[in-house]
Amino acid sequence: MNELSVSQYDLVYNVFSFGIAVFGAATIFFFFGRSQVAPAYRTALTLTGLVTLIACYHYFRIFNSWNDALEVKNNVLSHTGVAFNDAYRYVDWVLTVPLLLIELILVMRLPRAETVSKATKLGFLAALMVVLGYPGEISSDAGTRWLWWGLAMIPFVIIVYDLFIGLKNSIASQPVEVRGLVNAARTVTVLSWCFYPVVFIFPMIGFTGGGAETAVQIGYTFADVIAKAVFGVMIYLIAAGKSEAEGFAPAKH
Amino acid sequence: MNELSVSQYDLVYNVFSFGIAVFGAATIFFFFGRSQVAPAYRTALTLTGLVTLIACYHYFRIFNSWNDALEVKNNVLSHTGVAFNDAYRYVDWVLTVPLLLIELILVMRLPRAETVSKATKLGFLAALMVVLGYPGEISSDAGTRWLWWGLAMIPFVIIVYDLFIGLKNSIASQPVEVRGLVNAARTVTVLSWCFYPVVFIFPMIGFTGGGAETAVQIGYTFADVIAKAVFGVMIYLIAAGKSEAEGFAPAKH
Repeated sequence: MNELSVSQYDLVYNVFSFGIAVFGAATIFFFFGRSQVAPAYRTALTLTGLVTLIACYHYFRIFNSWNDALEVKNNVLSHTGVAFNDAYRYVDWVLTVPLLLIELILVMRLPRAETVSKATKLGFLAALMVVLGYPGEISSDAGTRWLWWGLAMIPFVIIVYDLFIGLKNSIASQPVEVRGLVNAARTVTVLSWCFYPVVFIFPMIGFTGGGAETAVQIGYTFADVIAKAVFGVMIYLIAAGKSEAEGFAPAKH
Repeated sequence: MNELSVSQYDLVYNVFSFGIAVFGAATIFFFFGRSQVAPAYRTALTLTGLVTLIACYHYFRIFNSWNDALEVKNNVLSHTGVAFNDAYRYVDWVLTVPLLLIELILVMRLPRAETVSKATKLGFLAALMVVLGYPGEISSDAGTRWLWWGLAMIPFVIIVYDLFIGLKNSIASQPVEVRGLVNAARTVTVLSWCFYPVVFIFPMIGFTGGGAETAVQIGYTFADVIAKAVFGVMIYLIAAGKSEAEGFAPAKH
């Protein structure tokens, strides 16, 4: 992070604060949203809110770590000697990525056996993917990074394949009103996910320095906002749409 | 901020603290208010409370940044060398301005397709407006400031036009008891909004120094209080009025 400019530092700082605000607000929205949907979809919204709550916690940690590592005084940026702890992202992902796949499966309300098998399989693969990425992330050796990147890509590809092909057949069982939304949620997941393995290889292809560090942090934050908060709003809309289609009216009291 | 006096520093300090208190209290009022209105209006109140919660968070950050940047000891004001981060306002606005337009649309309870199209259009334009203002705000060059001010004014004018002309036709569909309130909410939005582009041009027309800085910070805070908390109370009154007109009675228990 040596060549970071003051304005790059500020931009990353503000984007992290933006993350805290987005995930905090999203959490409350999803928890209030539980009473607006039929009981069958409330667990999906609980998980949706937990994903953004966990992210809110980690963005607090990331924001504080950024401020502990770098200092700006009289418009000069200096390193305090404390390392910026990027690992918070991996701790976040190992929890939130399995949960957000499970919230998508739950909101589809498939037969119970299919729900359990899909949630177990995708949740396990998602956690494995994040765990395999971590040894590469903390290494500065390009060879080591490629090795773990390649290993993490195996569960990544299986999950993406499963979401695109496996869940596609289940979409036909959804009420016609929400099929477009379920499709959009699948697409949002896959597109926002593609960002992560690309960012991972930045240092391996010579994209380093202050501009790269800024791009990585802002990119990860926006990918997280889309994969968790925007995706969560889609889960809420699917849950509300299906509740209405099934004749559910929110309690008056 | 060089020519700031101790009493100007104190005044801004106290006004920021006022902002924290107002937005914190308003948030709790709106969240409690959810159970006083019919289920159809609860999402509007959730968003109203989230707008003031996000603002409360940012006024905490702004307040702390003000204290980190300036120090008063033995009645002498000095700069610590840490910059005052005015960007928190933009991070706040990019989230809250779209949300508060959406809360106005939701409380009107228009047909679903109209709600979705209006909320998407106004929400997007509002975020665009704030994003376009930011590069001008962080520049000290008058030409650059005018350029981004002009660009941000394009979505600004479209939104104001839409609120004044577009929503006017929808007012006829509202229960007669709340038409005056909906009208007032529109007017409050437009009037409080006009403050922002005017304050933005202060440094471009030579209004600088401690007095100008004080005026800007106090002005922004009061405009925020009106556009978010006072506006939110109107949303609550509209929601409560419509709930009553539709025969809704809050739970006795």
